[in-house]
Amino acid sequence: MEISTILDKIHLQIQPLLSQGKVADYIPALANVNHQEFAMAVTLNNGEFYGVGNYQQHFSIQSISKVFSFTLALRHYKKKLYRRVWREPSGDPFNSLIQLEHENGIPRNPFINAGAIVVCDSLISKAADGELALKDLLTFIRLISADDTIGIDESVASSELQHGFRNSALANLMKSFGNIDNDVEQVLTTYFKQCSVSMNCQQLSRAFLYLANHGIDPITQKQILTSAQTKRVNALMLTCGHYDASGDFAFQVGLPGKSGVGGGIVAIIPGKMSIAVYSPALNEFGNSLVGTKALELFTTYTGLSIF
Amino acid sequence: MEISTILDKIHLQIQPLLSQGKVADYIPALANVNHQEFAMAVTLNNGEFYGVGNYQQHFSIQSISKVFSFTLALRHYKKKLYRRVWREPSGDPFNSLIQLEHENGIPRNPFINAGAIVVCDSLISKAADGELALKDLLTFIRLISADDTIGIDESVASSELQHGFRNSALANLMKSFGNIDNDVEQVLTTYFKQCSVSMNCQQLSRAFLYLANHGIDPITQKQILTSAQTKRVNALMLTCGHYDASGDFAFQVGLPGKSGVGGGIVAIIPGKMSIAVYSPALNEFGNSLVGTKALELFTTYTGLSIF
Amino acid sequence: MEISTILDKIHLQIQPLLSQGKVADYIPALANVNHQEFAMAVTLNNGEFYGVGNYQQHFSIQSISKVFSFTLALRHYKKKLYRRVWREPSGDPFNSLIQLEHENGIPRNPFINAGAIVVCDSLISKAADGELALKDLLTFIRLISADDTIGIDESVASSELQHGFRNSALANLMKSFGNIDNDVEQVLTTYFKQCSVSMNCQQLSRAFLYLANHGIDPITQKQILTSAQTKRVNALMLTCGHYDASGDFAFQVGLPGKSGVGGGIVAIIPGKMSIAVYSPALNEFGNSLVGTKALELFTTYTGLSIF
Amino acid sequence: MEISTILDKIHLQIQPLLSQGKVADYIPALANVNHQEFAMAVTLNNGEFYGVGNYQQHFSIQSISKVFSFTLALRHYKKKLYRRVWREPSGDPFNSLIQLEHENGIPRNPFINAGAIVVCDSLISKAADGELALKDLLTFIRLISADDTIGIDESVASSELQHGFRNSALANLMKSFGNIDNDVEQVLTTYFKQCSVSMNCQQLSRAFLYLANHGIDPITQKQILTSAQTKRVNALMLTCGHYDASGDFAFQVGLPGKSGVGGGIVAIIPGKMSIAVYSPALNEFGNSLVGTKALELFTTYTGLSIF
Repeated sequence: MEISTILDKIHLQIQPLLSQGKVADYIPALANVNHQEFAMAVTLNNGEFYGVGNYQQHFSIQSISKVFSFTLALRHYKKKLYRRVWREPSGDPFNSLIQLEHENGIPRNPFINAGAIVVCDSLISKAADGELALKDLLTFIRLISADDTIGIDESVASSELQHGFRNSALANLMKSFGNIDNDVEQVLTTYFKQCSVSMNCQQLSRAFLYLANHGIDPITQKQILTSAQTKRVNALMLTCGHYDASGDFAFQVGLPGKSGVGGGIVAIIPGKMSIAVYSPALNEFGNSLVGTKALELFTTYTGLSIF
Repeated sequence: MEISTILDKIHLQIQPLLSQGKVADYIPALANVNHQEFAMAVTLNNGEFYGVGNYQQHFSIQSISKVFSFTLALRHYKKKLYRRVWREPSGDPFNSLIQLEHENGIPRNPFINAGAIVVCDSLISKAADGELALKDLLTFIRLISADDTIGIDESVASSELQHGFRNSALANLMKSFGNIDNDVEQVLTTYFKQCSVSMNCQQLSRAFLYLANHGIDPITQKQILTSAQTKRVNALMLTCGHYDASGDFAFQVGLPGKSGVGGGIVAIIPGKMSIAVYSPALNEFGNSLVGTKALELFTTYTGLSIF
Repeated sequence: MEISTILDKIHLQIQPLLSQGKVADYIPALANVNHQEFAMAVTLNNGEFYGVGNYQQHFSIQSISKVFSFTLALRHYKKKLYRRVWREPSGDPFNSLIQLEHENGIPRNPFINAGAIVVCDSLISKAADGELALKDLLTFIRLISADDTIGIDESVASSELQHGFRNSALANLMKSFGNIDNDVEQVLTTYFKQCSVSMNCQQLSRAFLYLANHGIDPITQKQILTSAQTKRVNALMLTCGHYDASGDFAFQVGLPGKSGVGGGIVAIIPGKMSIAVYSPALNEFGNSLVGTKALELFTTYTGLSIF
Repeated sequence: MEISTILDKIHLQIQPLLSQGKVADYIPALANVNHQEFAMAVTLNNGEFYGVGNYQQHFSIQSISKVFSFTLALRHYKKKLYRRVWREPSGDPFNSLIQLEHENGIPRNPFINAGAIVVCDSLISKAADGELALKDLLTFIRLISADDTIGIDESVASSELQHGFRNSALANLMKSFGNIDNDVEQVLTTYFKQCSVSMNCQQLSRAFLYLANHGIDPITQKQILTSAQTKRVNALMLTCGHYDASGDFAFQVGLPGKSGVGGGIVAIIPGKMSIAVYSPALNEFGNSLVGTKALELFTTYTGLSIF
């Protein structure tokens, strides 16, 4: 079956599900999206693109940004990064403080909030301040997306900051253990801006291609990560990419991927392609309900699960 | 034996212990005290005063302030206060986040940090802002101490604020559960100032008299608390007044009391008197090492333990 | 007011409460008691006795037995006992495994189940086997109760054993940490028999007199514990005697005491008397609802709270 | 490179590592193995076999047996099994009781001990008793291994039973939550026998082939599991197959696999082959140190990681 045919078929099949799930409503900027929205985009390693639905609709990438920031930190700190953040599944809700308290402020992995905050802190240290760190991150995202227009939705960022008490608790706790180097408020401001990067499915599927090609952007041939680092990112996405439903996602979709509470998910098929999907209503674990289903259908129709 | 004789005897007996223990050193303002200092003061319900050592030496009352703020909050909110803070021993280190996370942000009691922060927040709500809340607290402390000179050591307060990441984590976590009403930074600033009230043993022993007299200041005859509220404060001091050594203190001293990391402890003998002691070196549980011993000797010589 | 008058008054006042609360129903032997039962008994240090209600009605003393077994273990092992069980409030439900797992199998205090199981194990080691340990315990209880007829309700014991999975989990966990010396099954069998000792209020109030008299039975003048050990038992009863409502009991009643899930509570007034109360319906914390109220009224009418 | 060449190359390369790591020594039967042992076996889906080292040396398969028992339980109970055991990574040490206590006795996944004990209990319920359940399990293992000689090492089993206090704690705790149907002792006896199945690398690599072929044994064409169930087992092996180093194994090896404390690991390459490795010295996470390295080299040389 052609990819475009598959996307059309998925588009049809997920229609009845569009009324299910629940949009993230902890901040107005996320709550006020169109609940029925759906988009899916595929970029092959050779650059071919396929899309269905409103795949140029921007949305808040939220936790998907953790993949970008972790990539940048890996490039800079290499294995030294693992002194400050581990690489194992957490088994706790994504914002738990208990694990941090028992393990001296070292988060379980870079895809839970605590881990991503540490990664963000490390990028600030490298860039000298939060604004420069964000500039570096945006430059990187624009580069791998081949799109200079990508930016931050400041209204989302400032909403997040006003409601980010749990993340502030995480950051302060890690600071008390000495695992945050910069000013907590600067780290949180930077972190929430990072989460508020606004992208569409087309850009996201393009941006993740390096993870489907051993760390080398298959279009520009630029090396983003080493092959081993790429394997690490993919292994982490598979085991920890979807909060407390990572095991279910590994089973249902069978691809390394990362979801965000804004309703986006990006997954990669090693050696072949990158797939982005968007639908804002979430399942009970905080992952896009329709997005997860669409990816499951995609691996079913293509037979391209890793298992 | 006369009280003055007892105090002299204790003063002699604790000499060899003055070189033991460890002064709190997490902020310079606390670390830079004279480690060998010792003072003890007794005020009877009839107003008679006995002192030994440098009982007019001021020090940071730290957690002893929790008794004053809890008293004020009880006066204002009465039983409604217990919706926001419980009244049971915690069994966890005094600054644990785990219990808070499992119990929806409701701290175990008003004498662990989380509980005292909630109490502080409640006083800010009542007073309209943090500065006014502090003014109320100081007015109250001066009243029951019969001493208008008592104030806040601002250098201690600002040091605390710069190192208070763990307390900030607690406050933000409770805020995420909706159990902090005011701005977190304002609450913490107020809380650290409250802890930085500077008093001496004479003032403290005078100030606690209402707890030794069913809630009525025995000298001025002013009612501070009801008899039932007083019983509650005393029961809490006995079961939770000394962090993770409350059980040991109940055994060794056998009196309701409250200690502070600055090296002070105040204890009361219901119906009879109030005793304050100061010595900055702490035992492994964060309570004044010599202070605990001095109080134990006092109950041994007077036979006035509650058991 | 005369004690007999006070008891009559209490008897009258608690009538409306007799229909409240919930009898322990996890085993039939406990569920099949008369829910409306009430009895109260006071024995003064001089031997005078006062009772109201059916104070010769036997019931399962359950956790009250922990005071007897801890007393025996203290007599034998003295301070060495504290290597295996701590002396601090737990703040966790009485049968929690979490604290044990974090603290290497050392229970918080001898009055939570884990602690009482360790104490029971220590008595078995001393006596050579479980049967002999039980015989020692019964001999001791009969001695301090001045009643040779006291025995074990074997039907309760065997019911407990069949439903004691949580206690078995505790014992096995502590065994895995090396804190149980004997065979787990033998320890549990012995422990459940100890909890199934059957006594009435008259016997219990007599038995606890040594705790109201510095460790010396005031009638026979036999020394049961040293004065310091007695202080320790009383301090533990005050801070940990009533599961997760110990703080509330300290406040409401203001006396060292120990409750059992069978509906009994015994409390002592140092230097004066011992009071036992029985009413099988429990409050939400597993303590006798009417029993707690009756003791509160008793301290109110006599003015003999320790605070 | 030919597979036989690759195996020889690996055999050479791991030599210096054979003196590292630490053999499991909690029971003598496991401690008394030859620490320097190494074997590796590959069976292709077409039946071709390659081996290096002493690949007919039997060892205790331990936790590898969890894959077999889970497979049988899935066959029988299908999705109903998930009411009693979840499918998510645990993030806690493999024998933690804390998660069980917070989550009502439902273990996180079938590959931690608690989960495997529940699975074992479900097989006993199905088979009527523990002996019959074991017979079923052995019949199944012999079938998929195409080897009728496979049996249980009873000396290992009885050693395990005598030291299995932690597992007994887990089982009793789950029983207290109603998640164990049969007698706890019977369940544990059966569970320890299951873990004491003795196999060699050749048999293990043969036995796992159905997981490399969508649930159908590629040699006999018998359907063991559905394709979806197979995906589930593989996803679980990838996310939870190696205790607290599952994330590291996913990264380093990049294959679904399961390790046992006896020193064995089996991994599969979907659509292609199954690989078993044995070397008894363990790394800090309880997985075969040399075994993990050998598998990493295998995916490096073949380029067959799933990432």
